[in-house]
Amino acid sequence: MTARSINAERLLGRLHALGQIGRDGDGRLVRLAGSDADKAGRDVVVAWIRAAGLDVAIDRIGNIFGIWRTADIADEAPVLLGSHIDTVINAGIYDGCYGVLSGLEVIETLKASGYAPARAIAVAAFTNEEGVRYAPDMMGSLVHVGGLPVEEALTTVGTDGTVLGIELERIGYAGAKKPGFLKPHAYIELHIEQGPVLEREGIPIGAVENLQGISWQRITVDGDANHAGTTPMSMRRDAGHAAARVITFLRDRAQASNAPTVATVGCMSFEPNAINVIPSRATFTVDLRDPDEGRLRAEEVALAAYLKDLAAAEEVTISVERLARFEPVTFDSSIVELVEEAARRRGLTSKRMTSGAGHDAQMIARIAPSAMIFVPSFGGISHNPREHTTDIDLVAGANILLDVVSHLAAQ
Amino acid sequence: MTARSINAERLLGRLHALGQIGRDGDGRLVRLAGSDADKAGRDVVVAWIRAAGLDVAIDRIGNIFGIWRTADIADEAPVLLGSHIDTVINAGIYDGCYGVLSGLEVIETLKASGYAPARAIAVAAFTNEEGVRYAPDMMGSLVHVGGLPVEEALTTVGTDGTVLGIELERIGYAGAKKPGFLKPHAYIELHIEQGPVLEREGIPIGAVENLQGISWQRITVDGDANHAGTTPMSMRRDAGHAAARVITFLRDRAQASNAPTVATVGCMSFEPNAINVIPSRATFTVDLRDPDEGRLRAEEVALAAYLKDLAAAEEVTISVERLARFEPVTFDSSIVELVEEAARRRGLTSKRMTSGAGHDAQMIARIAPSAMIFVPSFGGISHNPREHTTDIDLVAGANILLDVVSHLAAQ
Repeated sequence: MTARSINAERLLGRLHALGQIGRDGDGRLVRLAGSDADKAGRDVVVAWIRAAGLDVAIDRIGNIFGIWRTADIADEAPVLLGSHIDTVINAGIYDGCYGVLSGLEVIETLKASGYAPARAIAVAAFTNEEGVRYAPDMMGSLVHVGGLPVEEALTTVGTDGTVLGIELERIGYAGAKKPGFLKPHAYIELHIEQGPVLEREGIPIGAVENLQGISWQRITVDGDANHAGTTPMSMRRDAGHAAARVITFLRDRAQASNAPTVATVGCMSFEPNAINVIPSRATFTVDLRDPDEGRLRAEEVALAAYLKDLAAAEEVTISVERLARFEPVTFDSSIVELVEEAARRRGLTSKRMTSGAGHDAQMIARIAPSAMIFVPSFGGISHNPREHTTDIDLVAGANILLDVVSHLAAQ
Repeated sequence: MTARSINAERLLGRLHALGQIGRDGDGRLVRLAGSDADKAGRDVVVAWIRAAGLDVAIDRIGNIFGIWRTADIADEAPVLLGSHIDTVINAGIYDGCYGVLSGLEVIETLKASGYAPARAIAVAAFTNEEGVRYAPDMMGSLVHVGGLPVEEALTTVGTDGTVLGIELERIGYAGAKKPGFLKPHAYIELHIEQGPVLEREGIPIGAVENLQGISWQRITVDGDANHAGTTPMSMRRDAGHAAARVITFLRDRAQASNAPTVATVGCMSFEPNAINVIPSRATFTVDLRDPDEGRLRAEEVALAAYLKDLAAAEEVTISVERLARFEPVTFDSSIVELVEEAARRRGLTSKRMTSGAGHDAQMIARIAPSAMIFVPSFGGISHNPREHTTDIDLVAGANILLDVVSHLAAQ
């Protein structure tokens, strides 16, 4: 088994080819879910899946499946690999794509090697994992596990006013399959870490044993739009100032704690957004994450209490809208052990770790034993064109996936 | 002299009529400089000036002058009244328009009363006082006093990509007069306070003795766009967080001081502005004002020092662009005394005060003895459709202007 290895040139070649698809006028990689760029990326991936001799199945939410299934194993639940190919705005080329293309690479390698699986093996590219254009993120995998009705997902209105279902029809990826039609025996997702830990510690393989809980909120502060020159500081109801206080509160709280909680305000807008007018409204998002559900909930409670005090102190009104909430996920320990074992056999160090980002694996974990494999991210950089992983690490990760899959599909 | 009073019905009628011109589809009052709505407002005001029997003169930057000048006083420098009729987005009806229409009202009243002036009296509506579409604000009066070459002003590109000179040609207000052709003997601007002081103290007349200095800066913070879930708090270079620190610094500093300094962050934007990405860039404006030049400069220095420390502490880069800078202005004490005296004679209380907002008067003060008269603003609200002054206060202010002008034009 250890002699078998993936075709590094093919995998890396595809990764770079896919990374050129969806460049905008400024050269930025932008493949938002349901866009023309997404279609272009999907078309290429589907062509590669077909060329590998796999069956292609597309479900109503646009999830793409490439399935290697011989007649005699048609009834066995498949081992599922995968991730997503949609991107953020001005993305790197690895996030998601590495998992999808490695999954395909592993299946092609096994198929070509004469490996006889005891069950089907499939690779998935889930729709709208990033959630940039349509909320929530991880939508395709969430629909797959029944966590969101497909009708509701398809009627989602995007940040640009488009409707996801109409966009999927338009680009030819509104499939016929019922979401969830494929019930996996196990799910493994290979991904770049998107954080600095593996690189800093010089460890090539992360055996991801759990995933942080995520809490997304949109907060709106309403104050009074008065003249910047004539309103004494003491008489202001400044929505922008209140929003700034929330940001510094979150940072000060995180820094005073030893917990791994992370808190981010990524979106911010002021109204009327004029230089000489005190902001009457500030709208911003809060992204809270923690691997422990109790602690995550405590952070949400602390924020809510702070907002209440702030509203009273600043004489503003504050409203909170919950955008997404996922509890922390514990992955399947036996698959995590298989990852560690595979690394050991290839002479690679590995480290048990927590995923800080959300991934499709957290959704699939609801219906099947699941785990993830991480490889190092240069400087921890992600969601950025400088996202980078060395070719050696990329190939090593794909080979660990190969080993784990060949073990699981033999059962 | 005290028996003479303005025609309240005519003044208030015109104020409300002008306030209906330039309403957008949502009913918002929007007469940005050089726009179709501005043209509609100008056309009505010019028609009223002509109907009053005044000469109309329009200069190259579009400033409108209505001049009452008889043959025998043609060479005397006129007493100039005025303000502006352009507005912010979603404006109230008083800001600027009250000064222009009261100026016209005063001249009509004097003319009809048989008053024999020793010098001409003129009313001005200066172009682009608000500076919303074209920067800087107070542009027409700045050009009038020679503070900005007219060629430079006319080539200003607006926030919507238009060029002011082309827009003035288009709406028919690129006049032939050389800016500054009219050298006033004195200038008096009647305006709503746009702040809460007069209303709170129950005083109908503000004798404005000086005007705050204004410092406008645009600050750009550059950090790193990393993943919100995977980047430990201690490793972040969060541009949004640094921007928030600036806002709280300004507020804390203002609150710890007894000085009348006001500091406002009115504009803010984050990039990439995504919920799960640490902001790589935050761009915002800082509006600092103080009636004392030394203190204003000290505030600018304190902000610059804070930005330097912040850049080091947060490992971000910060760049600062100066958008506008006006030193505080001291108005002519003899005109301020005339305002106080006129109020006393009409049995009204008055208060010497500082203008917190910028006004055309601060420009004209460079070339002629100038002052302003304020009337109360309901709740201090301005730049807002809820801007309001009672009819009684509006009429009282115009009568004080009448008294001051009849005194000055008799000299």
